[in-house]
Formats: sequence, structure tokens, C-alpha cells
Amino acid sequence: MRTIDWVDGAVELVDQTALPGELIMQRITAVADLVAAIQSLAVRGAPALGVAGAFGVALAAREFAGDPEGLARAVRAVEVARPTAVNLARGARRAAARLGYGVEAVLAEACAVRDEEIAASAAMAVLGADLLQELCGERPRVLTHCNTGALAAVVGGTALAVVYELQRRGALAGVIASETRPLLQGARLTAWELAQAGIEFRVAVDSAGPFLLSRGEADAVILGADRICANGDVVNKVGTYAHALGARRAGVPFVVVAPESTVDMDTPDGAAVEIEDRGAAEVTPFSAAVNPAFDITPNDLVTAVVTDRRVVRLDRGEKL
Amino acid sequence: MRTIDWVDGAVELVDQTALPGELIMQRITAVADLVAAIQSLAVRGAPALGVAGAFGVALAAREFAGDPEGLARAVRAVEVARPTAVNLARGARRAAARLGYGVEAVLAEACAVRDEEIAASAAMAVLGADLLQELCGERPRVLTHCNTGALAAVVGGTALAVVYELQRRGALAGVIASETRPLLQGARLTAWELAQAGIEFRVAVDSAGPFLLSRGEADAVILGADRICANGDVVNKVGTYAHALGARRAGVPFVVVAPESTVDMDTPDGAAVEIEDRGAAEVTPFSAAVNPAFDITPNDLVTAVVTDRRVVRLDRGEKL
Repeated sequence: MRTIDWVDGAVELVDQTALPGELIMQRITAVADLVAAIQSLAVRGAPALGVAGAFGVALAAREFAGDPEGLARAVRAVEVARPTAVNLARGARRAAARLGYGVEAVLAEACAVRDEEIAASAAMAVLGADLLQELCGERPRVLTHCNTGALAAVVGGTALAVVYELQRRGALAGVIASETRPLLQGARLTAWELAQAGIEFRVAVDSAGPFLLSRGEADAVILGADRICANGDVVNKVGTYAHALGARRAGVPFVVVAPESTVDMDTPDGAAVEIEDRGAAEVTPFSAAVNPAFDITPNDLVTAVVTDRRVVRLDRGEKL
Repeated sequence: MRTIDWVDGAVELVDQTALPGELIMQRITAVADLVAAIQSLAVRGAPALGVAGAFGVALAAREFAGDPEGLARAVRAVEVARPTAVNLARGARRAAARLGYGVEAVLAEACAVRDEEIAASAAMAVLGADLLQELCGERPRVLTHCNTGALAAVVGGTALAVVYELQRRGALAGVIASETRPLLQGARLTAWELAQAGIEFRVAVDSAGPFLLSRGEADAVILGADRICANGDVVNKVGTYAHALGARRAGVPFVVVAPESTVDMDTPDGAAVEIEDRGAAEVTPFSAAVNPAFDITPNDLVTAVVTDRRVVRLDRGEKL
């Protein structure tokens, strides 16, 4: 099963708001519906958003054939549907660069984005598992945050693909999945994926993670990224920074796994990134909340960045 | 209104599991019902638990008059109803020490525990507000975790009593209340108390706290304790440690406010404290979770401990 794909002239995607209760495939033919799916987090995860952005432009090319202004508006709507993950706009722009060559050329480029993410996942899994075994010994116990599995990509995933690879090697000694408030991507999506894969895990509330690390309950923190800045600052799901502080104090590696498509050399550092605030309703029935969907982990807290092409050891002074 | 009190031969307490939806007073005459209320967190918060422990023994003295073995079992059941907060067992033991002097003597001691917590709250409020203004300037913005208000005590509270005192002085510039998963004591109880008091606040998911501190959104973290060890390690609601790491990295004070009854010189350090795990059901429909209700903040991350009698500046090397 693919989390997002192009099937018979439409985008098909797993509605992640319905999991773990129901596995529902949405079939989308209108750009507005895809934008709504992105904004409601029916589709989420940096690599999956990149593919969604590209397919969104492929939909736009069909829906607005002969209407250049409508097309431009639709492409822009896809690009800016969410502001923080670089992949969404990047995927959209890659497909949009082919608009002058016809709808089939746009679709071919979008499918290339999808296929590259599939290949990237497989490559990250191997590089990441090798690194974790090098850093933590033969059978690591890992703590992960948010969902970075197949549901965040097309298949496989990023950090969770590394967990799957360790399991395949018989080299996984334990998984703690943080629940990831407010939308529970860990407790709903990661837990569902791990259960499907037959991997044992324990869910923890987000704020327990640093304490569990201090108690020695995991050998590494491994998670994804929505944008990796040129200086190595990591923008990722809120809670990532707290886990990085916990890993540093506990003396365990903090490893970020994300495809090259997430590395953004045009963004100098975390301070330059717009952090989406998703409003109070996700958090509380009271009207007042501060709800940043992401946070910024400074590069000095990151042991290594693993992409599909390389391992960048920030702890050794290596640069992106 | 008192959160817990002795009224006409029974313990009356606010059922905190029903807030913020409903304000329900429970009237309890049997020890077993009080133990159940403690274990379900109908009554919680270190000072309130101390009073509950003392009133529990007062109930036991009446319920098991003429049955020494039943009485001993009942007193023990109250003492060990929850393991982490020192106040519960300490309050129970204070009342139990009067068992040889008749039921009225036991009740008088229990009421003394209650009255001392009321007085302690008023004293902490002043000492804490003075300290925050000294550390942060005239109008601090604070971040607090869990519930440390009237609902955690009898009236007033601990850390939240300091917030009320700042507000009374016209010296409060903002409050961020972390939601406090899994049972949402922040989002349910602190938010309810602050709304009742007409104090503006914003709720944040727990894992956002360290990031919000890094963004400069609060001038101090102020929270309570379930046990303060002889070396200054602080045992408190899970998530406290993560906020301490965030405060340290952001360079803002981390202030713990708790009555002297929470200081436990018989416990050398945090490693000696049993951390209650409350099981998976609070966290996830999946069967596997790790759910420590508390965590341990090492003394080197604590700026100051404020009690009803003193301010101990751990950051200046002062000892308890």
C-alpha cells in the first residue's frame, strides 16, 4: 500500500485523520480538495507533502487547462497550503516547472518526485540503521517522536524506516513512541504502523521522553524533519527540541533522518523559518492557546543528519 | 470554597476528575472511598494529599473504633494510596500519632494539618512573588506546569498562589499553562482556576514549553513539587524535568514552590524515590505504554525552592 499515489487520473491518499480507527482511502480530483486534505493533515509528513505538492500541480494542470490565471492561483494554493515543511513547495515547484510542456509532462515529473521519495526511504533505512548500530551497539533501543513511517512518506518512511530496517536485521531491542500532542501522530499513526509490522513498542506522553532518557530507557532518539536549514538547525514537529535537550543531558545520540528534499540550503537557520501556529481548537476548549506545530532544534544538539545520500556528523563538525 | 475540608463528620472534596465540565463536591465517610478518591485523582496535589491523608486517619478512627486491626489496615491503606508525594504519608502519620488520645484528638491534628497548609499557601504566595519580581523584573510572564492552585491545596495553592499574588499586585504580564498529559491537570484545572480568577492565559501542549522558552515567551518557569529531596532534587509531575532543561537552555529561572511539608530530608536524592507508573489506559488504547506520573529534576537545574518559611537559592549553592 502507498500512502499517496496517482491512480487513474486522481490522487489517492490514506486519510490519516481517521487512523487508527479506520483505514480510508480518499480519491481526490480537485485542487481545492487536495489543499483541504493537506491543511487538515489527512496527508502529512515532509516526504508525503512533497509528493502531494507535485500531484497537486498535476491535478491543477488538468482542472485549469485553458485558464492560466486559475492555474496560477491553484498552483500557488498548493505551494502555500502549509508553510513550514520545505518539501511541499519544493514538490509543487518541480512539477510546475513542467507546465509549459503539457499535462503529461507535469504528471511525469510528479511521479518522479514520488519515485525518488520511495528510493530515498530505502536508502535512508540502510544508512540510518548502520549509523545507529555504530553509535549504540548491535541492538539499539530507540525513542522516536511523531510519525515518520510509511504514512509520512509513500512507503517505508524516514526515521521509522530505520526502525523497520533494524527489525529486519534482528537488531531492534525496543521502541518508545511519544504520543505527539496535540494530534497524536505517535499514539495514533506510529503505534498503528508498528502494530501492523508486528514490532513491540511502548507509548509515552511527550513530556516523559526526556525523563525516560535520563533513566536510561533508550539508547538513541531518532526522528524526522520538516526542514533542515543550511546551518544544520532542524525544524520538526513540536517536542523535537525538548527531546534533543533530553538526549544531550543523557548523553545519547540524537539522530535526524530525512531525505535530501528536506535539506534547504536557501534557509540559513531556524530563525528564518515560519513556524505554523495551528490555533487553539486542537489543544483546548478554552479559547486561548499557543500552538506551534513545529519547533527548532539548534544544530549543536544534533548528533547526525542521515539523508538518502549521506550521513552528516554534526557532532564532528561536519557541515551540510 | 475549600478544595478539601472536614464538614459535619465527613470529608468533603471537589471531584477534580469532573472539572472543568462540572463542579461536584464529594462527601466521604468511609476510608475505602477516600482511598479510591486519592487513587483516581479526584483529590490530588501534594498539599491537598497531605490534608487528605490526615482526614483519612480521622475517618478511620471513627469507622474502626474498637477494631484495632481494621484501624491499622485502614491507616496503612491511606498512607500508601499513592507512593510518590511525601505529603500523603506524612499527613496520615501526623494524625495517626494522636490515635491513642481519642477520635477528637485525631481530628484536631488533621484540622491542624489543613490549617497549616492554608497558612503555608499565603506565605509562599508572598515569598514567591517577591522572588519572581527580584529575578525577572516588575511584571513577569510565567510558564507553569500541572495544577498548583487551590485545587492542589486547600485554598490558594503553591506556584499558582504566586501567580495570584502577582496578579493582585498588578505585576503579572502573562501566563502559559502547559496542558499536562495524560490527565490534563493544566488544560482542565489550571485553566479553570485562572478563568475563574479572571486571569488571562494561554494553554500549550507540554512539549511546546521548552521551545516557547527558547522563543522568549516567558521570563520564568514556576511550578510545584510532590517531594523535594534532601539534596534539592525535585520530584514533580512528569514534564517538570523537560521544562527545567528548557529553562536552563533559555537562561530563565526555574522556581519550585512547595510547603515545608513537601521537603523530605529523609530522602537523600531523586534516585531514592519510587516513581508511580499509572499504566497504559491513561495514555493509549494500545496495551503498551510507559506512564511515569512524575519525574526527577536534578538540583543543578533548580534556581530556587520557595517554601512557606524560606527561599533556598540552589543556584547560589544554598542547601535545604
